Amino acid sequence: MTADAGPGTRVTPYIYAAGRLRLLDQRRLPHEEVFLDCESAVETAAAIRGLAVRGAPLIGVVAAYGLCAEARRVAARVPEDLDVAFQLGAGRLLSARPTAVNLAWAVGRMRAVFEASSLDRAEERVLRLEEEARRIAEEDRLACLAIGRLGAAWLQGKWAGISGVPAVLTHCNAGALATAGIGTALGIVRVLAAEGPLAILAGETRPFLQGSRLTAWELKHDGLDVRLLPDVAAASLIKGGRVQGVVVGADRIAANGDVANKIGTYGLALACRAHGVPFVVAAPTTTIDVSTAEGASIPIEERAASEVTSLPLPGGGSVSLAPEGVSALYPAFDVTPGSLIDAIVTERGVSVPPHADTLARLLR
Amino acid sequence: MTADAGPGTRVTPYIYAAGRLRLLDQRRLPHEEVFLDCESAVETAAAIRGLAVRGAPLIGVVAAYGLCAEARRVAARVPEDLDVAFQLGAGRLLSARPTAVNLAWAVGRMRAVFEASSLDRAEERVLRLEEEARRIAEEDRLACLAIGRLGAAWLQGKWAGISGVPAVLTHCNAGALATAGIGTALGIVRVLAAEGPLAILAGETRPFLQGSRLTAWELKHDGLDVRLLPDVAAASLIKGGRVQGVVVGADRIAANGDVANKIGTYGLALACRAHGVPFVVAAPTTTIDVSTAEGASIPIEERAASEVTSLPLPGGGSVSLAPEGVSALYPAFDVTPGSLIDAIVTERGVSVPPHADTLARLLR
Repeated sequence: MTADAGPGTRVTPYIYAAGRLRLLDQRRLPHEEVFLDCESAVETAAAIRGLAVRGAPLIGVVAAYGLCAEARRVAARVPEDLDVAFQLGAGRLLSARPTAVNLAWAVGRMRAVFEASSLDRAEERVLRLEEEARRIAEEDRLACLAIGRLGAAWLQGKWAGISGVPAVLTHCNAGALATAGIGTALGIVRVLAAEGPLAILAGETRPFLQGSRLTAWELKHDGLDVRLLPDVAAASLIKGGRVQGVVVGADRIAANGDVANKIGTYGLALACRAHGVPFVVAAPTTTIDVSTAEGASIPIEERAASEVTSLPLPGGGSVSLAPEGVSALYPAFDVTPGSLIDAIVTERGVSVPPHADTLARLLR
Repeated sequence: MTADAGPGTRVTPYIYAAGRLRLLDQRRLPHEEVFLDCESAVETAAAIRGLAVRGAPLIGVVAAYGLCAEARRVAARVPEDLDVAFQLGAGRLLSARPTAVNLAWAVGRMRAVFEASSLDRAEERVLRLEEEARRIAEEDRLACLAIGRLGAAWLQGKWAGISGVPAVLTHCNAGALATAGIGTALGIVRVLAAEGPLAILAGETRPFLQGSRLTAWELKHDGLDVRLLPDVAAASLIKGGRVQGVVVGADRIAANGDVANKIGTYGLALACRAHGVPFVVAAPTTTIDVSTAEGASIPIEERAASEVTSLPLPGGGSVSLAPEGVSALYPAFDVTPGSLIDAIVTERGVSVPPHADTLARLLR
């Protein structure tokens, strides 16, 4: 046990060893646990682009290891090509998910290490890259742990004096499958569950079912009981006193504390405020985008109607859920005003409203 | 054209002719349009129990015609058994969906007509039953039309001065597939669409997908464009000014105006109130249960976890959506406080808050 030991996870969304990166293919969960082998930056970029791995922090870590795999392969065969291969690979990875802030940030760190290392010692350069990738992953692991502890302590403070087993509700997947650690929202859930009785509820998260497929899988994998619910059941359970806290992740946090996250987050925040239930966003400080002043300027991706009107089948193909030719409207994210968010939990501390001030202080 | 002509529907959820009741099997929509033949009360009760037909007003009409089918069959073969057969059939139908108020009400009306008719003239008794069933259906058709017109006029009043095409959002199915007419919530939608440009949005209504399967099917069948959405997208669309009114049906209305309806209704009402968007409940006065003082005393049915964690396939069988053994919490209905409901539209008039007073006046 080291000083930072704490609640862990048995979920391994990736494994890196000796130039081979293995990625748990999240598209095939919960039905199959299949790993994709990546021995190059091109293969890693394809896995990111194809959504085999997702979750902003995890994508950064995977991109870093993808560059290690690329460098080790080339260094062993044609070491004189290492420089060109590395830069090409970095470019491929950067374009795999252009809007992912963590991806650019991780590739930037790897590039700085590579460029600072000695040009004629290929093996040493690869070792330096592997050290940096390990550092990125370890930093993310520790950030999750800090978020988990800070968020759990904050909620426990709110729960002082309540009777019975508290129930916490989450949405989408901000867990071990989205990070290199115990997760952000699910990091808080894991710490709470390690410290006392806790009921865990998860919205199924239509239409991609990240709740049913990923959150339920990873909690069960770690021996934690979770109950799924149709997303729209949350408001009435909150009204009925059956939820003591809602904890979600974030895709982007504006400077004023407005949060873009998976569609459905805003409705949860409204229900929490109506009934005095704490609404918590958990994310590393790298998710805060100080160049975005407020949520209204965050562009919201609208996805294809077919993702609502049909469902992919595990064995391939899909089943239609609606009449042929009926259209759908599917904004993938929504924006929750910072004023409805009781706590934004980062690895550096907890921001409470007004968030503009506290977020700026945390980032200093 | 008669005095009550108005927006219609080409949807035929049932057909009755010469002792044969044909029911559109709603379980197989939208993939197949298959009719079930019922020539007895037993077959009709099985269709109701098995959810081949649903929607409180429609169930009442179907039960009435099921008794006609039963009576015609027995009158033609063993007329001396008619009395016993009718009473047995009525009992079977009553127990098919014990909590459905409209079912008991319709069977009660049929029984009164049967008992008032001459004991020794079987053919005449059957004709009297068929007349009463037609009357029940016609009353429901007219109630839908009145609700449609009153609700549309009320919303149009709220929309005076808005620019652009208004968008109305509905949830679940309170349409022609749930009534003997143009529907309640969808009755309002049909009248609005007949009178001017209208955008129609429908929540898919997980987990049974009544929105995707039934509402989308019946509107498309009538040539109306509808766009589906993941249920949780509604709050953010309402916040973004993309919805000008929400219209839903009701399973039961308490004396104070609290409304039990399909799970998800409460969250829609909260979002409407937060953004000043009209929230409308449409239902015939037979849905008002004066013996229930307030929503808190309405029991909420919790359904099986498997209805959330797996999806039935059109060809039979089902596909699992979550890891084996993961549980789910699925309250099928929620209760929306009357104070959040801007209008309860019945065939006798529109109730606005405080509903206790206006509902009592409408029922007088």
